[in-house]
This record gives sequence, C-alpha cells and structure tokens, in this order.
Amino acid sequence: MKIGRILSGMRPTGKLHLGHLLGVLKNWVELQDSYECFFEIADWHALTTHYRETEEVVENVLNMICDWLAVGIDPKKSVIFRQSDIIEHAELFLLFSMIVPLPWLERNPTYKEQLREMEGRDLMTYGFLGYPVLQAADILIYRADTVPVGEDQLPHLELTREIARRFNYFYSPIFPEPQAKLSEVPELVGIDGRKMSKSYGNTIPLDTEEEELKKLVRSMITDPARIRKNDPGHPEVCTVFAYHKIFNKEEIEEIDYACRNAQIGCVECKMKLAEKLNQFLAPIREKRKIYSKDRDLTWSILLEGNKKAREEAQKTMELVREAMRIKIT
Amino acid sequence: MKIGRILSGMRPTGKLHLGHLLGVLKNWVELQDSYECFFEIADWHALTTHYRETEEVVENVLNMICDWLAVGIDPKKSVIFRQSDIIEHAELFLLFSMIVPLPWLERNPTYKEQLREMEGRDLMTYGFLGYPVLQAADILIYRADTVPVGEDQLPHLELTREIARRFNYFYSPIFPEPQAKLSEVPELVGIDGRKMSKSYGNTIPLDTEEEELKKLVRSMITDPARIRKNDPGHPEVCTVFAYHKIFNKEEIEEIDYACRNAQIGCVECKMKLAEKLNQFLAPIREKRKIYSKDRDLTWSILLEGNKKAREEAQKTMELVREAMRIKIT
Repeated sequence: MKIGRILSGMRPTGKLHLGHLLGVLKNWVELQDSYECFFEIADWHALTTHYRETEEVVENVLNMICDWLAVGIDPKKSVIFRQSDIIEHAELFLLFSMIVPLPWLERNPTYKEQLREMEGRDLMTYGFLGYPVLQAADILIYRADTVPVGEDQLPHLELTREIARRFNYFYSPIFPEPQAKLSEVPELVGIDGRKMSKSYGNTIPLDTEEEELKKLVRSMITDPARIRKNDPGHPEVCTVFAYHKIFNKEEIEEIDYACRNAQIGCVECKMKLAEKLNQFLAPIREKRKIYSKDRDLTWSILLEGNKKAREEAQKTMELVREAMRIKIT
Repeated sequence: MKIGRILSGMRPTGKLHLGHLLGVLKNWVELQDSYECFFEIADWHALTTHYRETEEVVENVLNMICDWLAVGIDPKKSVIFRQSDIIEHAELFLLFSMIVPLPWLERNPTYKEQLREMEGRDLMTYGFLGYPVLQAADILIYRADTVPVGEDQLPHLELTREIARRFNYFYSPIFPEPQAKLSEVPELVGIDGRKMSKSYGNTIPLDTEEEELKKLVRSMITDPARIRKNDPGHPEVCTVFAYHKIFNKEEIEEIDYACRNAQIGCVECKMKLAEKLNQFLAPIREKRKIYSKDRDLTWSILLEGNKKAREEAQKTMELVREAMRIKIT
C-alpha cells in the first residue's frame, strides 16, 4: 500500500553527476517503495532557459534515462516519462494561465534570482516567466500530493498550491494541495571545492570510467596551507576529505588523524578516495552500459512509462474540462 | 484552385448579431471560394477574459456553429473547428512562449487598450498577457498565409509575423509570415445609434423572430430634433436611416426626400425597415432552425471539421518538433 503520490523531475540539460545522485536520485530510489512515483524528464522546462540550444535534447533525454535506471529507478515500481510526450501538460498549462494573476509570477523570488544568476542568457521571455505555471501543471495533472523539494524550490511549490486552490475555488475541487517533502541531503562539493555544477566544470559524471576518475580525484583541491608532505593538514578545508566523509565513512577518523599529524600524504589520500569512489560508481557504470548500448530497450522503457503517465494525465484532463464546463456534453 | 489559406475565428461569448454578420461573416462567406478557409471557434480565447463565466461556453459554441451555417459558411468548402478540441494549439502556444520576449507582449497597444476598456474584470492574468501568443499558434499551426482582420487587429498580426520570423530564424523556416487581408465593411450601429455590442444591449441577434424584430426596430433612435410628424427630419443622424442605407438600398433616395420634407413619419419608416430586415433575416432564421433543432447534425459537422483541422495541426507539429529537435529520432 503506497502512502501517497509523488511527482518529481529533472531538466535534461546535460550529463548527470554525483551531485544529482546524492542530492536527488538517492532520495527518489528510496521513495519508490512507499510512494506511487512519477518521474518526469522535463524537456519543455529545459527550453525555458535553453531555447537556443536544442541540438542535444534527445541525446540528453536518452542519457538521463540511462542514468536513472543505472542508479536504481525501477520502471516496475515508478513511472518514467518525458514531459513533451504528454501533450496534456501543455493544455493544463494553458488553462491555468487564464487564472494565474501576473503578480504571482512577477513577485516570485526564484524568478528574480534566476534572472540575476543567468545573466548573459536572454531570459526575459513569456515562457520563462510562466515556468511555475508549467510546473504546477506537471504536478497537478497527476494529482500528486507530495513533492520532494529542496528549500530553494519552496516558493514554486507554494505557487502550485495557490493555483490548485484557485482552480478548486473557481470551478470544482479536483486538485490536492501538494505538500513539500524536504529531505536532508549532504551537499556534495565539486572537485574544486565549489558547489558541484556543470557550469563550473567541476563535476564527476556518473559514467566516469576508472582511469578518468583517478585523474579527477588527483586534480582535487586540498588544504592550500599544506605544501609539503610533512606539513600538518587541515581536513576541514580539504575537498578530498569532504568526499571521504561521504564515500569512506569507515576510515574517516583514521584519515583525519593521519592528515593532521602529517602521517599520510595527499597523493596517497587521494588514491584511497579514488578506490572508494570507483567501488561506488562501478556497479552504476556497469548497469548504465546495458542501457546506453541498447537504445531500443531504453526507449521502450520510456514509451511504456509515457503510456502510463498519459493515461493518468488524460483522466485528470477529463475532470478539468468537466469542471471548467468546456466539454462537449 | 485556391489562392491561399486563411485562418480566422470568433470567441463564443454570446449570441451572434447583425454586426457580426456584416462585419465578419459576410466576408468569410465570400472568401470560401477563393481561399482554403479554417474557421475557429476560439473557446480558449474566450477564457482569457471570461474565465469565471464558463457555464455557457458549450451552449455558445453550439449557437455559434448554427449561426455560421445559417449565414452560409459551408462545411464542404471550409473547415469549421473548435480550438479546445485541437490540443496541439496548446503545445505550440507553449513552445512559442519560450521564444517570445516579454516586452513584445507588454508593449502591445491592443493589450493596454483592452486592460483599460474592460475595467471591472480582473484581466491581469498570465493568460491574458499571452493572448497574442495563442493567436499566433492558432494561425501558424495551419500555416495560414492570409488573415482577414480589422484595423484594430493589425498589431496582433504583426506579432504573429514576428513570432514566425523568430522561430524560422532560430530553428528552421517552416512558417509563412501571414499577411493581413483588410476588408472594407460598413460599420453597423446598434438600435440606439452607438456601436453594436452585446455589452450595450443594443444588438439585433441573427435568430430574432419577426415580432421581436418589429419591436426592436420600433425602439430605434431617430432624429431627436423631429418631434412631430410634420417636422422635417435629418436622415444623416437617424439610426433607422442608417439601416435603410444597408438593407433597403433601392428606396434610399425616396426615403431621404420624404423624411426631409416631412412626407413620411418615423413609424411608417420603421415599418418599412422592419419588413426589409425581416426579408433579410427570414432565410437565415429558417436555415438556423434546421441546425439548432438537430444538435446531433450540428455536432457531427463540428466533429468532421475538428478531424480535418487536427490532421493539419498534427502535420505542422511534426515539423515543429523536428525543427526544434525535440522529437524521438
């Protein structure tokens, strides 16, 4: 018996990396057993910021499915689907647009922040302003009651709830007001110590092969005050140590001691980490290859998921059209 | 051989009247022979301003089809369809929204004017701002090259052209830049001499029965300076005379002379007009009854039109998805 229904998604704007796995996917894998999960490949959302670079969308979608399956998203338990294949999302987006006051969108703090963050991109578009309307359609078309989100996504989810309330009040109460499920996730830094992000070029992609992985770990930033091996180190400022804390918990105290007392050098410490990371990534990498080599298999999993998603979306749209009285009777 | 393709539409917000017939429908009927015509019942557009009053949408749609058929829109020549049945319009609206700069919409003079005109309604919605984007999707999804418009609609059509240009430039040149077809139509005043409009309550609905028609004509505003029958009249300020000029051309000089010389009274003059108007409306009214009594027939005409429209819309959307590279390959 599932305790609720979840909608969550990712924008296919590039390769998934360890940050995605720890920040989002691990959580999804765990949620699959207790919730009915709909996982969306949000390719229309990718267009809100990447409308000029659409060459790689299909490739990114395929890669994303491979990544999801590799880390344990299970199509027998969950529905994996692509947003643009469920045309009903666009219809609900359009219908919601009629009842969403402009100031709700203009005052949205995430909107203002993103406009600032992504300077250089021309984001003053109608679609980018409507991002939260499309997101509300994504969630509510599955009548999801639960949405796993990070703190920064709370204003968007609040907007979804407001749109649901307004629709329910104007027409007929058919939508739940979805609740946030905040999960505590360790923030994984990139190999240069900054936030892991494709735009910083500091990620560890999920499909990194062993040799490449060693190279990435070797280039990690360590304690800048430790110049020679017999200088004592400060693990609290070391990126490598931050990784040991996550991927090598059993040795963590030993390494901490050895570093502070200059008993272990950075090179050796990095090799330990590379080994641990490789142990962690090897099964994911192997499983991933099954899907990336067999495109037909991978697309067929998507098509199967699309079918389930669409059925559910169509059911909701029947209710919506009936509630709004725009249905042939 | 047709010389082009036309898209035009009307919002089903109430009964059609003589103003619609002379201002729009007569023109459509004539265009049917030289153009491939797609006539849209724009029920989603109706929501941009009437999102709170949806109870009558279906009834209005049915009435609109009856009116169109009654005045001579011929489903054998033209495609009659309902916007909300062609879900692909919503998809194209969404995709266009990604590339439409907000200032294009905010600076649109029609937008500002309508916000002023419709005060009292809460039109500060995301959907109302996006009206011209949906309109562009309506036109371009049929790759229409010609749009019959009034002067006031020119800025909207210019926006459609700009959206087509931008899409063609970003992705692939699949859209024509539709041209305006301005038609000279006599402006028909309402029975009180102001512009004929449902909101003024001064219309003559197309389905007006003979007795009701006489009543409406009797209540028409005439020359206010002509108090007694033997006062000379001023036809140029008389609403009844304005109607004679359109519906009773053959007697126009005679009536003009008789009025100025106090040889005909307003009551007699009105009876003449009522008879002419009735002659004009009788065949429309009779033909209309066939459709309004046989709902199955009328819906089947719509369903047939929907099917043709959808096929065409789907063809275009295949091209769009291919051009934007968001298609499974």
